Formats: sequence, C-alpha cells, structure tokens
Amino acid sequence: MDFKIYYDSRKKLIEDFLEKRMAKKGISKVDDAMAYSLLAGGKRIRPVILMSTAEALGKKGYDYLPVACGLEMIHTYSLIHDDLPCMDNDDYRRGRLTNHRIYGEAMAVLAGDGLLTLAFEVMLEQKNVDKKVLIETVREIAMCAGNFGMVGGQGLDLEYEGKKVSADELRRMHAGKTGALFIAAVRGGARLAGSTSEQLTALTRFADLFGLAFQITDDILDVKGDAIELGKPIGSDEKNHKSTYVSLYTLDVARVMAAKTTAEALQCLEMFGENAEPLCEITRMMCNRRS
Amino acid sequence: MDFKIYYDSRKKLIEDFLEKRMAKKGISKVDDAMAYSLLAGGKRIRPVILMSTAEALGKKGYDYLPVACGLEMIHTYSLIHDDLPCMDNDDYRRGRLTNHRIYGEAMAVLAGDGLLTLAFEVMLEQKNVDKKVLIETVREIAMCAGNFGMVGGQGLDLEYEGKKVSADELRRMHAGKTGALFIAAVRGGARLAGSTSEQLTALTRFADLFGLAFQITDDILDVKGDAIELGKPIGSDEKNHKSTYVSLYTLDVARVMAAKTTAEALQCLEMFGENAEPLCEITRMMCNRRS
Repeated sequence: MDFKIYYDSRKKLIEDFLEKRMAKKGISKVDDAMAYSLLAGGKRIRPVILMSTAEALGKKGYDYLPVACGLEMIHTYSLIHDDLPCMDNDDYRRGRLTNHRIYGEAMAVLAGDGLLTLAFEVMLEQKNVDKKVLIETVREIAMCAGNFGMVGGQGLDLEYEGKKVSADELRRMHAGKTGALFIAAVRGGARLAGSTSEQLTALTRFADLFGLAFQITDDILDVKGDAIELGKPIGSDEKNHKSTYVSLYTLDVARVMAAKTTAEALQCLEMFGENAEPLCEITRMMCNRRS
Repeated sequence: MDFKIYYDSRKKLIEDFLEKRMAKKGISKVDDAMAYSLLAGGKRIRPVILMSTAEALGKKGYDYLPVACGLEMIHTYSLIHDDLPCMDNDDYRRGRLTNHRIYGEAMAVLAGDGLLTLAFEVMLEQKNVDKKVLIETVREIAMCAGNFGMVGGQGLDLEYEGKKVSADELRRMHAGKTGALFIAAVRGGARLAGSTSEQLTALTRFADLFGLAFQITDDILDVKGDAIELGKPIGSDEKNHKSTYVSLYTLDVARVMAAKTTAEALQCLEMFGENAEPLCEITRMMCNRRS
C-alpha cells in the first residue's frame, strides 16, 4: 500500500464533501467566515481517522463522510474560538491570518457557533446506518466535544494558566482538550462500522494512546518545529506560560515518551491485522511529523 | 383551565430537568459558568412551547423534556455569546451580571460552547420516540439554530449595524435571530407528537407569526418597558443604534402590528380546538407581557 496515495484520496473525499456542503449558503456573511477557516486545508486527521477505523473493521470509510466531516467542523470551530483575543490571542493559523483578524471578533464567535451547530446538522444527515447506532454515535461525539471532553479540557487550560501543573493535571487537561475528539473519531468510526465490544475496547485504548502521543509531539514541535512549516510562530507555549510535556519532562524525555506511547498505540491495532495498516501508518506519521 | 397553574407546572418540570442534568458534572469549572446562566430563571418559553405544541396534538408534553430542554440550552448559549464585549457588551441579563462579567470572557465563550454542545447530547437522549423522527427533529433544530437560522440572523444583525435597514431586512434578520428557534420549538413539538403534514403546515405558520409578534413586543418593551421588571436597561437598542420595529414604524404602529400579528397567529390554532388552549394563552401572554 502506498500510504501517501491512501491518505490523499481520503483527504480529497473530505475536502470535496466540505466544499460541497459549504456551497449550500445560509442567510448571512457568517457563511464566509465559516468557510474561510473550514476550507483552509489542514491534515483533516480526525475525519481520516474515523474513516480508517471503519476500514480496520472491513467497512468502506467513505460511507461515513457526514459524521467524519462533522468532526472536522467541530475541530475547526474550536480553533476559531481558541484563537480569539480573549483566549490564546493568535494572529496566525495554518499560515494564514486567524478568523477574527479577517472578520472581526464578533463574526469569529458566530463562525465558530455556526460550525459547531452545522456539525450536528451534517452528522444527522448520515444515511445507511442503523438509526439507533447513529443516535448513539452522535450523542457520544457531543459528549466528547463538550464539558465532559474538549470544552472541559479548554476550561482546565484556563484554570491552569500561569500555574505550575502536575503531570496528572497536564494529562487530564490534554485528554479533554485534544484526546476526546480523537476518541470520538475512533469510537465513532468503530460504532458506525458495527464493532464488537471487544474491538471497541481495544480501539478506545488505541485512541487514548494516540491522543497522548499526538499531544507530546505537538509540544515538542512548539519548541523544535519550523515556524513556516507549522504556519505559526514557535515558542508560543512558553510565551503564554503554558505547561507542556517538554517544560515538565525536558525535550529528551518527551521524545522518549512520544516514541513509547506510539509503540503502545500500535500494539492495540494488532488484532485487526492488515485492515488496520492505514491506521498504523497514520499513527506513525503523526509521531514523525514536522508540522 | 387556570393558565398560571398550567404554565408554572410546565416550567417546574423544565427547571427540574435542567437542574438534574447540570448536577452531572463535567471535568472543569466551565460547568459552573454554564449553570450560572442556564439556571438563572427566565420564562423557559421555548421548551414550554414545544411541550404545549405536543399537547395541542393530544400528546403529553412532559414526554419530550430532553428535546425541549435542549432548546433552552441553545437559547441560553446564544444569550451568553450575545452579551460578550465583542457583541452587545451587556453587563446585565435577567437582573444579574452577565456571564463574562462573573467568569471572564474566555470562560463565557466556553460556557456558551459547552451549552450548545450539551444541548445536542441531551436532545439525543430523548426516549420513546421513533428514531427516524428523533433524528429528523434534532437535525431540523440544528438547522434553525445555525447559519440558516439563529446564527445567520445574528450575522445579519452585525452586517446591519449602524446602517439604515429596510422593513424586509429587519424582518429577515429577526426571522433568523429570534423566529427560527420558535419555529424549532413548534415544529419540534409537532414532529415528536406525530403531526400530519397539514397540521405541521398550520403550526409552522403559527410559529412564524408568533415569532414576529414576540419580536415587535420586545422592541416596544425596549422603549416603554420597566428596567427592573425586564432586568436590563431600557433604550439599549437606541444606544446601540439598532433598527427596531419601533424606530422603523413608530411606537403606535408597532403596537397595532403586534396586536394584528398575534390575532393571525391565534387563527392558525383554531383547527386544534381546545387542546391548543395553552398555546393560545402563551401567545396572548407574550403579547401582553411587561418583561
């Protein structure tokens, strides 16, 4: 399998779906602000993971594009709100000006609200899935995205600001802030593809470890990455006095942790044989990435 | 029928449901900020309307509390974001300090995000409804709340700021900003209760007229209301240079419009006989309200 071809083909399906969906215009210019951030490229890692997880269980990933792309809308809304002056106050994202720097703060708040709402509308358009399974999947995605997951993690991030946090607190914050949406992607793909409870347990553990490895890598890149490839300035965590796996453990230890966690994540996929090869490759890619 | 007893009993069911649901705590203090605004009283008009609409069709309103209360969460999130410094910059709401004045801007953004997300989680917990009907109902509520509805209307509000708007533009903005969620409440209640398409058409027209009468009354109260009863200062629309039905048509004409629109709304309910009496009373109440 040529992984690059695999990944690009899935990404293309996602980009096409998102573009087509955003061509259906709402009643105001909020749509432009929503499209600006949603159609700004990016790795589309969450929807690809959802599709690849379904494929690990022998199903076709493209059958689940509405739910997969809903996840990308949720991710994008969280970036828009995260960049706001009252939050991280970032000017650049993926090499372009942030949403509020183009459309103003008020419109950026609405663009985020609009994308979060549209995510649920789109996910509930999913066809060819048992209705009970769809309801349970979307309900769980909401739980992962809200005060029990991503929004809760962002809340902890605010609470911890300027404070020295413990390793446990850092882990809990990231489990919410970035981990929960990966769990939503993996479990969402698994549920839609009709996983057994044993498979769901293994995949949940995979998602948990993947999220951790992803975050440690992110923290390493904020210190050692390339500003142009990343599309944002280096050292923003330190500037914002944020605790990271690097500040808490040193760069060398963080690198070992990332490698070890990645290996453990890969082990969880062994039971799925070669169907899980794309998911394995995604995991390796995310841990060796430079942006 | 004693309408006050009727209304208070429905409101109590809603308050109890919301309190119980918020007792299930997420992982951060975002929950406190969410509860501060959600449990701050208010008329709970949207969830009551959903229940009363189901009752107009001969069903029990309390069977649909999860979807009804999801609407209240969506309404509350929109108020929190609307009050932000970058939006209307309001210090008071329902007689109490606004969310960001207590918890800070960043937390208020998250509290809104958390409530919007929780709304979908809770609505998808609805039991005893055909799954296909539930999916269609929640999907339509998302459409009414997002860039095709409420968020879109708020976008138009921003676009129109400081600009002289036409009657058509004002109507379109309010149809999104306040009307769409009333349509969601009425059509949601109707769908859940298994309405025929003829009933759904009549109720949709009712909701549309109700929303218009509600908004005109709101604009009148902003000029002639009582600051203490309203729990917010009078004249904020004029202060913020917002076009209203009063500024566009004069106070006297706005009053006639409100009365006429209310009468038309009531006509749409005639076909439902005495089952629709609570919905009629709610309509009369909202047009004679002082706060």
